[in-house]
Amino acid sequence: MTKSIDFWYEFASTYSYLSVMRIEGEAAKRGVSVNWKPFLLGPIFHSQGWDNSPFNIYPAKGRYMWRDMVRRCRRIGLPFKVPEVFPVHSVKAARVAWVGANEGWGAAYSQRVFTAQFAEGRNIADREVLKEILEELKLESDRIMALIEESPVKDGLRKQTEEATSLGIFGAPSFMVGDELFWGDDRLEEALEWG
Amino acid sequence: MTKSIDFWYEFASTYSYLSVMRIEGEAAKRGVSVNWKPFLLGPIFHSQGWDNSPFNIYPAKGRYMWRDMVRRCRRIGLPFKVPEVFPVHSVKAARVAWVGANEGWGAAYSQRVFTAQFAEGRNIADREVLKEILEELKLESDRIMALIEESPVKDGLRKQTEEATSLGIFGAPSFMVGDELFWGDDRLEEALEWG
Repeated sequence: MTKSIDFWYEFASTYSYLSVMRIEGEAAKRGVSVNWKPFLLGPIFHSQGWDNSPFNIYPAKGRYMWRDMVRRCRRIGLPFKVPEVFPVHSVKAARVAWVGANEGWGAAYSQRVFTAQFAEGRNIADREVLKEILEELKLESDRIMALIEESPVKDGLRKQTEEATSLGIFGAPSFMVGDELFWGDDRLEEALEWG
Repeated sequence: MTKSIDFWYEFASTYSYLSVMRIEGEAAKRGVSVNWKPFLLGPIFHSQGWDNSPFNIYPAKGRYMWRDMVRRCRRIGLPFKVPEVFPVHSVKAARVAWVGANEGWGAAYSQRVFTAQFAEGRNIADREVLKEILEELKLESDRIMALIEESPVKDGLRKQTEEATSLGIFGAPSFMVGDELFWGDDRLEEALEWG
């Protein structure tokens, strides 16, 4: 039986970018398979009384995070550019990723979308940007962009976000191995080596 | 010229325990000297609208932190016990540490106080506990416990906390190397290797 890890990520989350780009390589080294689980932090933050990213609500924390991201990306050799809008409205990107996770292209798509946002400064709230990415990946962009306006996909992502909440997830990226929760890109290796 | 690092820590902070116990060993390996800078997070949290630890205000985050502390301590071989009161009232412990930093016994004292709180479950808000620790360390406990009720020490710690705020510090542990701020025990090694 292959060991597997559930990878919970949010498209508007800066630190999720690090794990989105690192997880498949680190998991492969350890023979672990990855279940990509996109979700929305918005409803979780909202239930904590936040109507914005904590990095915007608490300016010292925000200034630190942007500097830390520059240093982290340099350390691991990832390009990085501060996006024009933060946090981006991520629901469409996440719905497409939910479809992708079910159809087997969630990882490649998500890596491409995070790169578009955090390396290329593109606005991933824009349907056209998502459509172009699907086309680059040779996926049926019209079918997929129509699907994300339908109830099964909307409900699927909503349920996945509820599942995150019920697991005790409060930030992104998060990792679950069995019942064990790990939070933050800094815990990726520990999570992959757990148990 | 020896490279040095400013180590900002708060006695009520769980993650500060990890760095308090690790920093001298990790710094020595790299030939870095450590300036121990105790401060109070209370006023900083208060200015962000928090009247308690974020780990108490946000229960999912708190539950995660306690579990993460158990795992971290196991990984690095540190004893750990959830304290009965959290966050502890840390001002007296911090004032003593401020005296200790000026007199050259800040590190040994702080390690002993963190061990008392997080490994032995003792209440470090209690003057008697601090006094016993000073005596164990063969320090003049009466003189020191009298000093912390005087203005120079009270003002000294207050100014140190204001300095932390002006540096952009918003949590503990934090590390400064020149103008570069690092937050969290997870960044200790990166901070020590900076520049």
